[in-house]
Amino acid sequence: MGQPYDLPLEQLREYKPALTKRDDFDAFWNETLEELGKVPVTYERIKLAYPVKGISVYQVFYQSFNNARIEGLLALPEQDGPLPGIVSYHGYNWIIDGDVHETVNMGLKGYAVLKMFCRGQHGESTDNLVSTNGHVAGWMAKGIQNQYEYYYRGVYMDAVRAIDVLAAMPEVDASRIAVTGGSQGGAITLAAAALSPIPKLAVADHPYLSHFERAIDITPNGPYGELNEYFRRYSARPGIEEKAKATLTYFDIMNLAPRIKCHSWLTIGLIDTITPPSTVFAAYNHISASKDIAVYRYFGHELVPASITVRLGLFMDYLQS
Amino acid sequence: MGQPYDLPLEQLREYKPALTKRDDFDAFWNETLEELGKVPVTYERIKLAYPVKGISVYQVFYQSFNNARIEGLLALPEQDGPLPGIVSYHGYNWIIDGDVHETVNMGLKGYAVLKMFCRGQHGESTDNLVSTNGHVAGWMAKGIQNQYEYYYRGVYMDAVRAIDVLAAMPEVDASRIAVTGGSQGGAITLAAAALSPIPKLAVADHPYLSHFERAIDITPNGPYGELNEYFRRYSARPGIEEKAKATLTYFDIMNLAPRIKCHSWLTIGLIDTITPPSTVFAAYNHISASKDIAVYRYFGHELVPASITVRLGLFMDYLQS
Amino acid sequence: MGQPYDLPLEQLREYKPALTKRDDFDAFWNETLEELGKVPVTYERIKLAYPVKGISVYQVFYQSFNNARIEGLLALPEQDGPLPGIVSYHGYNWIIDGDVHETVNMGLKGYAVLKMFCRGQHGESTDNLVSTNGHVAGWMAKGIQNQYEYYYRGVYMDAVRAIDVLAAMPEVDASRIAVTGGSQGGAITLAAAALSPIPKLAVADHPYLSHFERAIDITPNGPYGELNEYFRRYSARPGIEEKAKATLTYFDIMNLAPRIKCHSWLTIGLIDTITPPSTVFAAYNHISASKDIAVYRYFGHELVPASITVRLGLFMDYLQS
Amino acid sequence: MGQPYDLPLEQLREYKPALTKRDDFDAFWNETLEELGKVPVTYERIKLAYPVKGISVYQVFYQSFNNARIEGLLALPEQDGPLPGIVSYHGYNWIIDGDVHETVNMGLKGYAVLKMFCRGQHGESTDNLVSTNGHVAGWMAKGIQNQYEYYYRGVYMDAVRAIDVLAAMPEVDASRIAVTGGSQGGAITLAAAALSPIPKLAVADHPYLSHFERAIDITPNGPYGELNEYFRRYSARPGIEEKAKATLTYFDIMNLAPRIKCHSWLTIGLIDTITPPSTVFAAYNHISASKDIAVYRYFGHELVPASITVRLGLFMDYLQS
Amino acid sequence: MGQPYDLPLEQLREYKPALTKRDDFDAFWNETLEELGKVPVTYERIKLAYPVKGISVYQVFYQSFNNARIEGLLALPEQDGPLPGIVSYHGYNWIIDGDVHETVNMGLKGYAVLKMFCRGQHGESTDNLVSTNGHVAGWMAKGIQNQYEYYYRGVYMDAVRAIDVLAAMPEVDASRIAVTGGSQGGAITLAAAALSPIPKLAVADHPYLSHFERAIDITPNGPYGELNEYFRRYSARPGIEEKAKATLTYFDIMNLAPRIKCHSWLTIGLIDTITPPSTVFAAYNHISASKDIAVYRYFGHELVPASITVRLGLFMDYLQS
Amino acid sequence: MGQPYDLPLEQLREYKPALTKRDDFDAFWNETLEELGKVPVTYERIKLAYPVKGISVYQVFYQSFNNARIEGLLALPEQDGPLPGIVSYHGYNWIIDGDVHETVNMGLKGYAVLKMFCRGQHGESTDNLVSTNGHVAGWMAKGIQNQYEYYYRGVYMDAVRAIDVLAAMPEVDASRIAVTGGSQGGAITLAAAALSPIPKLAVADHPYLSHFERAIDITPNGPYGELNEYFRRYSARPGIEEKAKATLTYFDIMNLAPRIKCHSWLTIGLIDTITPPSTVFAAYNHISASKDIAVYRYFGHELVPASITVRLGLFMDYLQS
Repeated sequence: MGQPYDLPLEQLREYKPALTKRDDFDAFWNETLEELGKVPVTYERIKLAYPVKGISVYQVFYQSFNNARIEGLLALPEQDGPLPGIVSYHGYNWIIDGDVHETVNMGLKGYAVLKMFCRGQHGESTDNLVSTNGHVAGWMAKGIQNQYEYYYRGVYMDAVRAIDVLAAMPEVDASRIAVTGGSQGGAITLAAAALSPIPKLAVADHPYLSHFERAIDITPNGPYGELNEYFRRYSARPGIEEKAKATLTYFDIMNLAPRIKCHSWLTIGLIDTITPPSTVFAAYNHISASKDIAVYRYFGHELVPASITVRLGLFMDYLQS
Repeated sequence: MGQPYDLPLEQLREYKPALTKRDDFDAFWNETLEELGKVPVTYERIKLAYPVKGISVYQVFYQSFNNARIEGLLALPEQDGPLPGIVSYHGYNWIIDGDVHETVNMGLKGYAVLKMFCRGQHGESTDNLVSTNGHVAGWMAKGIQNQYEYYYRGVYMDAVRAIDVLAAMPEVDASRIAVTGGSQGGAITLAAAALSPIPKLAVADHPYLSHFERAIDITPNGPYGELNEYFRRYSARPGIEEKAKATLTYFDIMNLAPRIKCHSWLTIGLIDTITPPSTVFAAYNHISASKDIAVYRYFGHELVPASITVRLGLFMDYLQS
Repeated sequence: MGQPYDLPLEQLREYKPALTKRDDFDAFWNETLEELGKVPVTYERIKLAYPVKGISVYQVFYQSFNNARIEGLLALPEQDGPLPGIVSYHGYNWIIDGDVHETVNMGLKGYAVLKMFCRGQHGESTDNLVSTNGHVAGWMAKGIQNQYEYYYRGVYMDAVRAIDVLAAMPEVDASRIAVTGGSQGGAITLAAAALSPIPKLAVADHPYLSHFERAIDITPNGPYGELNEYFRRYSARPGIEEKAKATLTYFDIMNLAPRIKCHSWLTIGLIDTITPPSTVFAAYNHISASKDIAVYRYFGHELVPASITVRLGLFMDYLQS
Repeated sequence: MGQPYDLPLEQLREYKPALTKRDDFDAFWNETLEELGKVPVTYERIKLAYPVKGISVYQVFYQSFNNARIEGLLALPEQDGPLPGIVSYHGYNWIIDGDVHETVNMGLKGYAVLKMFCRGQHGESTDNLVSTNGHVAGWMAKGIQNQYEYYYRGVYMDAVRAIDVLAAMPEVDASRIAVTGGSQGGAITLAAAALSPIPKLAVADHPYLSHFERAIDITPNGPYGELNEYFRRYSARPGIEEKAKATLTYFDIMNLAPRIKCHSWLTIGLIDTITPPSTVFAAYNHISASKDIAVYRYFGHELVPASITVRLGLFMDYLQS
Repeated sequence: MGQPYDLPLEQLREYKPALTKRDDFDAFWNETLEELGKVPVTYERIKLAYPVKGISVYQVFYQSFNNARIEGLLALPEQDGPLPGIVSYHGYNWIIDGDVHETVNMGLKGYAVLKMFCRGQHGESTDNLVSTNGHVAGWMAKGIQNQYEYYYRGVYMDAVRAIDVLAAMPEVDASRIAVTGGSQGGAITLAAAALSPIPKLAVADHPYLSHFERAIDITPNGPYGELNEYFRRYSARPGIEEKAKATLTYFDIMNLAPRIKCHSWLTIGLIDTITPPSTVFAAYNHISASKDIAVYRYFGHELVPASITVRLGLFMDYLQS
Repeated sequence: MGQPYDLPLEQLREYKPALTKRDDFDAFWNETLEELGKVPVTYERIKLAYPVKGISVYQVFYQSFNNARIEGLLALPEQDGPLPGIVSYHGYNWIIDGDVHETVNMGLKGYAVLKMFCRGQHGESTDNLVSTNGHVAGWMAKGIQNQYEYYYRGVYMDAVRAIDVLAAMPEVDASRIAVTGGSQGGAITLAAAALSPIPKLAVADHPYLSHFERAIDITPNGPYGELNEYFRRYSARPGIEEKAKATLTYFDIMNLAPRIKCHSWLTIGLIDTITPPSTVFAAYNHISASKDIAVYRYFGHELVPASITVRLGLFMDYLQS
């Protein structure tokens, strides 16, 4: 496969497919946020041992959407506050030991960092939304026959609530909070930036869950492929595919992008075959707020070292000055 | 990889590792069956069009464990009854369009066939047990930190209840019912035979969910590998692996095998790398009731054509004579 | 690889490359049919045990082209006749145990089903045409330097004769016979429909042996790749490739398509890389008789479950009403 | 996979499984040789252009077993004779453009070299033995239900006759002829040395067709795997496998080894997974005549450069001195 | 491939193959260290921008063996000193952007961290030892025909000198320095601990370059495979392999292990196929000083998250208390 | 992947991208040739045993660029001279045992053949240019930050000097010398033809090192991929990529093509994914001298048998008549 394999860069920069959102898109999300609003912002912190000086590490639990109990990890630098904060979201089916070391490393740079564990995916984060439709292994099709049951409805709300929780902590300056993550975490980052008024900055690496129609066509082998497999399972009932695609419009980052108000910084590698560049640019080009995107020619679906320096600079600019 | 790759056949025939069940194993299952017993046996049937004469096809819904609504498919030959019945269970993450054609084909041979859709895996079968622990994509680790929450607790009970439902149908002779399935379906078949008094025959192809300790070691790349991946996710917390393995003992087919009372017929291919022969023989050798096993030298994890004739003969012998 | 990978569907629907047949194309086939005509229609049936009620299964032998002895399998429902009939052809190098279970399952639906074993490929079907040219492993290049020696000349005639044989059986209504098969079997199905006046319906799944020129270019790794390999073997003698391609024009389904008189129904998956969609549409678009094609977006070179219901409906409409 | 993967070298050196030949083994071959003897030794030579001085290249045709017409290639150095001769056999499904350049290169070293094209595999070598059983793609199972029909019966006789032909050429000294080849060619080399009294030397690289029972078990993915696949095709008829294995005993190099009278030199790489070392040693250890074997630690199924010098030395010692 | 695939753990714990070192082993290293001693300990530091508070990052150049100019990266926490120090070595052909982020993250934990760039592998580290023998792509066979020319002679000395350089920095407490690295970096760590008197602690993850004889046999596909490939290149000259293996004895970590005086902590995953467990235990079991090893059942050749906490604890115990 | 996968043949024939050479391109090479000119043409020959009559084989050493000692192999037919000569260059990381058998085989055809071993890649050819930049495993990035240090500067000069050496041998007619090789050897062949006035003919198979900009884009997995990997290693320093690409312009065969004065014959397979056809045509179309190219439809990165006859004819035409 040649590099780059998707659209040429100049076309990517202009690639802006029509939004697919339905008429009740904003109503759906406002209603969902209202439902979240009825759950009080509460949390508990349990201190964990970690053999490094100058940082405290906590297991965190908080109440979230549908009263689910969500787990997270908090790294709190032992510095005079109030501290700037970062809420961090992990990739799809991709977190080991709570990403504790990464979280601590960011905390040591002077940020109160809260890593949310996606419901059902790690620790004791409870996925208490029941799907009345069967799905293929994974979460992509869980609840997909009904936008009120879809898996990511809970996850997006947990992400919003994670921000509320960090903002509520006494050591944290709620006016200086960023959201960040890669892949699934990048999608959640942009969703959280679109659905919460708190974030001042969103840093999203190769965001997933964007521009589903094209993703299904050009990258059927990665996690998007769960959708292809799901459609295969109901070869005799085309209504299933149609309804699933309708449900996905509510969760497509591309459709949420116009709601983002804070500054966004996205990254994408031109040989990324998991979240192809065109699906990322589709979302990026629909962001109307302040934004920037970094393109890496020789990188795929991976954290690009060069991007780390840039993001640290952004965090400093937006949160520490 | 050479063939066979697992133990030599003569060793397989003698392979009988110690059972791993805990003291409360039978109590756990009796308690669980009691809980199921509190849900009344009810079902509804919706006739579906199918362009073949002499057979009726129905969508079936029934109430099951934890009041979950389970979907299935029924093929009813238009013959004078009462009919012998077969309850059929599908493979892990492996059913398309309700396996309707396979079900009809068996129905045409003179059996009332009920195919159960595993909860969460197909159609509208609802998985309403909430796991308080996160897990890797798939169902193998869902609820694995607590035997009362584990995914297969619900599935095994749904399987028992599916038999109750078929037995309750007016066209069916409850004294002539068999259970059958391959892989996950083979495991469920044996579990149902162990937990329900109804089946007169159990036909299980290359059953899954057996002798976990060895499976984790010799076949980490198939679905058993979800467990390996799960243990990796908690590299810093060995308690997680220990508790998970304890939970699995309750669902290990090997441990359930001694409870089987009806005749069992198992099949295994000697080059099966998904459910290695030794894990299948481990369960087989712990069955104390009447039993037989067919070994296919040149076959892997697949339905062996030669085995079909044999099983049709068994169905005829046990159910039609 | 993206999906779909071949031409977009709207282009496929219009894709109609020029036919490649030579001037003596029809003369060649008429001469060949005449030669077949000199072999009398004779057959023997040997009853086989099969543990299912209501159906009889027979091993069948019949005399065919070049006096070859061809084997087949017959499933005869024990119903009042005369019965509609189906002649079924199998895939390339792809038949186990005579496909007996599939044949029985179709027979149980009320059809006298004759499965032909391709000469040289299964059972005791004898391939008695001697090729004077060497070829690569497989049958694609056997006799390819001379259309009178080419392997499929015998196979196509055996397919025509299989229809004659089924039509001659006392239980069968010769005016209600269909032909069917997938891949190689789909190609033989269309060839038989083009070369025999008997079939009332042809059902061909992802037919092989069509539009060779393009197949060689876009799918060199599947069975078509035997041709690529064959051409490599004679890199220093371009005449070999030229003659081989001339021979193939006589057997190209695309060139035979205009001769089809009965109704045809084809299926193709858009991610089929063995018989790419464009090669299938090339043949389909050259059929001038009544026809239809089913396109499956998420399927490759495989039997699509959704298509089974449709075909059963077609068989009922064309053969049972 | 570790290296070496088969038995350790010290065990290989002693590895001598029991012969599997049946009582009529020698009778069968004597009868077969007699049948060949009835075909007169005749050939024709057609000069080909080849842009190198000092060598003449000919297309050769000769009559062989069952009156088949076999093609070959002859390189004749333009030197004063009589010349020593080499008959060379190619690998399974593995010859391009008649191996003309390799043949010329050996001819330039002072040998009259005759390369035989295996019947059905290359050029115009005609495989006129008709198999009454179907087989999988390839030649391994062609005629396998009857030792009189088996494919290699013709090939081994063609190999013997190729030696007769070279010996009959006026430029050649019939008392100084060697046979050689690799893989299938290595098997034919040893068979020819066992069945023809002419060769003075046999050089066989990683010979194929040896010790089938073990090969089927440890290397099912290479060409031996055709046998595994063939056995799968008749899963319901164990008699097929039994008869096939009986047929193979007549063609197993291991069983022919004790008939070899000339000096043999074999080579084998310890990481050869196509013709595993143990199968080669099985044949080697049953040779009772003068013999040697070269073992290459870091090589697989390939011509080892170091072995070329050794063999050139052997050809010089046995044929030129 | 099953897990674990190498020796069982209980055998690994006892696995102690005989050392392979030659008589002049220690003389060779003493002579080499003497040669290094003639190069004065000099370095320069160039401050780099890095957008994190509390840490300074420097590009470092120092003179090393054969007067080569070696580059490295220094992270210096802005804390009151003197600071404990860590010298870190990277993996084979595996460093991006100088591993700057990893280095900073460790620096933020209170250590002066010097990352050495292996000569020829990164940045401007100059590999000025000329090999008079050709080698395969990579460094494993560079200079392998002569222990005085072998690539790792320079690397091991650069590693020793890196420690000298860090120890010489005014901010650093030379009595509290550790060495660490993974894979190639793990080998260099142990070599440096064996050849320099300075380190107080050595932390080596899945060390490479150990017990070559076995590595060549059981893991020919990873970087050790360069040796297999090198031996293939000289199939006709066995002297090449013999001499190469003699050279390797001087650089085998197993042979250097008895020289280690400080505490060592090693890690190994039981499914590591790049540096198989047995090769790591071979070195470990020859360490006579204080030592420990962590074994991870479900991990391969990768940094195990659980191991990070342990190592941070060790660094704190040995360097900060 | 379809065949052909690169540009269609008619576009390839016209494909002529703009040259990328810098202003001092010719000055650089003239200066480099001058530097080579200061090294006297000296060599030594050591006779080797080779068991073939009529040919002498020698190990050759000669002084070359930067006074490096380069090894080669000479095959000298024992014929009356003066002999035509061929200098042969091998592929990247691809030579076993000095390619002695291939060299002898060509020598037997009446040519004095000198095979050069690329510095650092084989035998005792010494690569004494020191790179002050680190590189990835392999030679593609060795010295790439400076055209005076780049690896191929030495190699190209060694190639020119090899011609000088062969021309200086008493048995050889310096006016009848050809250069040849495949892949890396094809690139060196064309470079030598561009930089030495001696060759009368250049035969280059699928030449490497051509049109780097496109190669990096369309074939990142082969050896060109070392460049992609190198650029990844410096993701944070774009200057590295820019300078590297500037260096490559000096060594790009496409830029050297216009300097070629003798007749050139190139070959390319249309499914070559290592040196894609477009990169080869890019160089070919910039040759202004007499030239021809052979295109092989069904071949990849391999020596095409059909091409051998053609090349032998060319050698005869240009060197023996």
